[in-house]
Amino acid sequence: MKLKTKILKFLTGRAVCMINEKTAKQMSLHVDNRVSVKKQNKKIISIVNTVSEIISPNEVAVSDKIVKYLKLKNKDIVDVEITPKPHSIDLIKKKLKGEELSKKEINEIVMDISNNALTEAEIAFFISAVYSQDMSLKETKNLIQAMVKSGSQLKLKGKVADKHSIGGIAGNRTTPIIISICSSMGLIMPKTSSRAITSAAGTADVIETLAKVDFSINEIKKIIKKTNACFVWGGALGLVPVDDKIIRIERIAKIDSTAQLLASILSKKISVDSNYILIDIPFGKSAKVTKTKAEKLKSKFLKLGKKFDLELQVLLTDGSEPIGNGIGPVLEMQDVIKVLKRQDPPKDLEEKSIMLAGKLLEMTSKAKKGKGKFLARKILNSGKAFKKFQEIIKAQKGKIKILHPGKYNYPIKAKKTSKIKHINNKLINSLARQAGCPEDKSAGIYLYKKASQTTEKGEKIMTIFATSKEKLGHAVKFYNKNKNEIVEY
Amino acid sequence: MKLKTKILKFLTGRAVCMINEKTAKQMSLHVDNRVSVKKQNKKIISIVNTVSEIISPNEVAVSDKIVKYLKLKNKDIVDVEITPKPHSIDLIKKKLKGEELSKKEINEIVMDISNNALTEAEIAFFISAVYSQDMSLKETKNLIQAMVKSGSQLKLKGKVADKHSIGGIAGNRTTPIIISICSSMGLIMPKTSSRAITSAAGTADVIETLAKVDFSINEIKKIIKKTNACFVWGGALGLVPVDDKIIRIERIAKIDSTAQLLASILSKKISVDSNYILIDIPFGKSAKVTKTKAEKLKSKFLKLGKKFDLELQVLLTDGSEPIGNGIGPVLEMQDVIKVLKRQDPPKDLEEKSIMLAGKLLEMTSKAKKGKGKFLARKILNSGKAFKKFQEIIKAQKGKIKILHPGKYNYPIKAKKTSKIKHINNKLINSLARQAGCPEDKSAGIYLYKKASQTTEKGEKIMTIFATSKEKLGHAVKFYNKNKNEIVEY
Repeated sequence: MKLKTKILKFLTGRAVCMINEKTAKQMSLHVDNRVSVKKQNKKIISIVNTVSEIISPNEVAVSDKIVKYLKLKNKDIVDVEITPKPHSIDLIKKKLKGEELSKKEINEIVMDISNNALTEAEIAFFISAVYSQDMSLKETKNLIQAMVKSGSQLKLKGKVADKHSIGGIAGNRTTPIIISICSSMGLIMPKTSSRAITSAAGTADVIETLAKVDFSINEIKKIIKKTNACFVWGGALGLVPVDDKIIRIERIAKIDSTAQLLASILSKKISVDSNYILIDIPFGKSAKVTKTKAEKLKSKFLKLGKKFDLELQVLLTDGSEPIGNGIGPVLEMQDVIKVLKRQDPPKDLEEKSIMLAGKLLEMTSKAKKGKGKFLARKILNSGKAFKKFQEIIKAQKGKIKILHPGKYNYPIKAKKTSKIKHINNKLINSLARQAGCPEDKSAGIYLYKKASQTTEKGEKIMTIFATSKEKLGHAVKFYNKNKNEIVEY
Repeated sequence: MKLKTKILKFLTGRAVCMINEKTAKQMSLHVDNRVSVKKQNKKIISIVNTVSEIISPNEVAVSDKIVKYLKLKNKDIVDVEITPKPHSIDLIKKKLKGEELSKKEINEIVMDISNNALTEAEIAFFISAVYSQDMSLKETKNLIQAMVKSGSQLKLKGKVADKHSIGGIAGNRTTPIIISICSSMGLIMPKTSSRAITSAAGTADVIETLAKVDFSINEIKKIIKKTNACFVWGGALGLVPVDDKIIRIERIAKIDSTAQLLASILSKKISVDSNYILIDIPFGKSAKVTKTKAEKLKSKFLKLGKKFDLELQVLLTDGSEPIGNGIGPVLEMQDVIKVLKRQDPPKDLEEKSIMLAGKLLEMTSKAKKGKGKFLARKILNSGKAFKKFQEIIKAQKGKIKILHPGKYNYPIKAKKTSKIKHINNKLINSLARQAGCPEDKSAGIYLYKKASQTTEKGEKIMTIFATSKEKLGHAVKFYNKNKNEIVEY
């Protein structure tokens, strides 16, 4: 049925269209039925809501997802038709029963997610299936291929390299440093990062304190042409939109299967044409994974790397406590600049960045075996890395400026003279979020002490920063409730 | 935040509220966040959509689910607050990993589903967890108890009995016959039935050709007081609303785990206070289950029956082909009346009804062991059962009247003289649905022949009935495409 669009800036988490109840009756449509909304040759699958007022019988109100996808304007004519349940639901059920899926079957599911043919609940069934039944290496490979195929790709010349951390460690903002070192040596580094999901900040949130991070694929091509590298937000690029959709549902139940984690990371690297990939897996107490799990994950990464003909290496690193002093977008950027400017840098952040950059330089033959760290440190000390960082920030429409942490702060002092045993990554992240991270960029935590250091009674261990009294209050309350686990003596 | 409701007859599959984007910003609300909508002491959890127009900043438009639950009128003031993710998500994740859930944990999940605290995707995660990991008998028992506790209960005096078929067989409308026979002998039979999900008709659809089926709990109490029994639609009663919610999501992926099936059936029987329960499990080619699966299911039913101290028996019956001649609401009611009025009854439907009614009469000591069938047949022949049926129909605001199948019809004739090997239940149901079942009550199929009967060339095998030429066309097209599987020679 031909209907006239009514654009209401209708924001929903999924594709929804609202039609008049009379129209629904005429089309034999029931609530939660699926319709296709078509304009010329492009179509999107949507869920239906019905109303008795506001929307007249010849109209359809469409949510932002539909407007964006079909590039609709007000009063455009679209074709709305009832559409049957897709076959991929049966395939998801098959996986849920524990059967292996073929390449064709995985492709069908991925295409249906990509085309919005599956509802949230159906995608949840797929995620559960992969989570509870796991995927074989062959299935994972096919999932990666299907995901890459469903999205956009970036073709780049030269030695294209990437570094990826599986995350989970507070602070740990090595990416801007590594990219600056390596791209100043001629490596092409199209770095796409995420925003924080459960942590205090993602690399995209941190870079945003100085520059823009949301660019189109054409725009980042220009930035890379100019500077060899970029640090952008992957979500804006829509390289692998299926992955974004899956992650949105995974986040609901905080579920992430190994197969999905591997597919999410590798599909994005392959989409931006990376051939040299260094994976950082921090492990340890309060990290995302234990050493045993880290080793299993490493082995899967290496096997998949071979299947896709990638030069891929994996490093297991110490993830037992936060890295750097700052936690939160502004505070982490201050750490990054300290390292790049060689002014009072946090030693752990500096050493980890040099080690990873050195490894990448060796992998790409920019440095001889065993000489990568030496070269990386040399570049850092020479000021070349900071110069490269400034170039990229400028290309991303930003500039280096002095940043200030939130004006409300609360110092935490040691109650006794004692040796610190452990600082909990997860709780430090939660504490920073209570203070307003990542939305409030200048909120966060500054750590003065690390594990195995000794505190004197009354000495500052950390300071909490926030942009409002209220949020500072939330954070202090959270600290007091959990202080024995946040810092263990 | 206090907001004024704007009632738009906004129909959605779930609780949704629409607020102005400015209000959302003020509340730090993001699309797909969860809010609680509160009026006095009652609250419901809802998903948020935002709009820039139509809804002003001090208003909230709420969907039908919310209006109904909070009994809202236009311009009522409600309290809308952001609400954290419920803990039960972690419990669902635990089950998805294959761990056993405790009684308390199952209770928490069921309460959250009941209170609308979980989204569709989260309920899908729960369903997948139970489907892929299965539940122990102990977990199933706890699930049943939690489901019963979350709903309403009916307290009845006397010997309360019920008969339940797991379904899947076309025709097979034994329920109205069994209830009429047994309740005329003094058994109390609060029979709640479903509407068709994938079949041509559910018992509720069939009864509706003569009487009302949607009553409140108080209304059915009165009907039962007057007549000993009722045949009503379970969905209207809201006895176990959690089950309705779960089934709605299960239907999406056509997933039904054994644990969920057991819980769905037994929670409803316990809610209406039934002590004597007879379960019919039809098995065979094109039935829902094979004989092996039927036996496993039987054993689980019996074990749970003991745990709940129920007099529960299970019969495995022949489900290899349709039972009765009519398929579709009107055509099945015609079969039922033929049996009750003793006028040219379909023999298979008559015998199965007598056998099941006899068993129930024995279980409840209304007949001696081995004498149940004899008594059931006697009641049927005496006209008592038909009289009881008329009484119940009258109490449900209906009356016995002459019914007519759809005026458009298409006879299917045998192409050759041959013996019929099999009539496929699933495809016969699909064929009837193509003809318009269950919405078009007079649509359906009349079968002249059954398996192991011989057809002469040109003899009628069946007639398809529909209410429009178009739908008859759909059905004929479907028949021609699948004729070799619908009837096998």
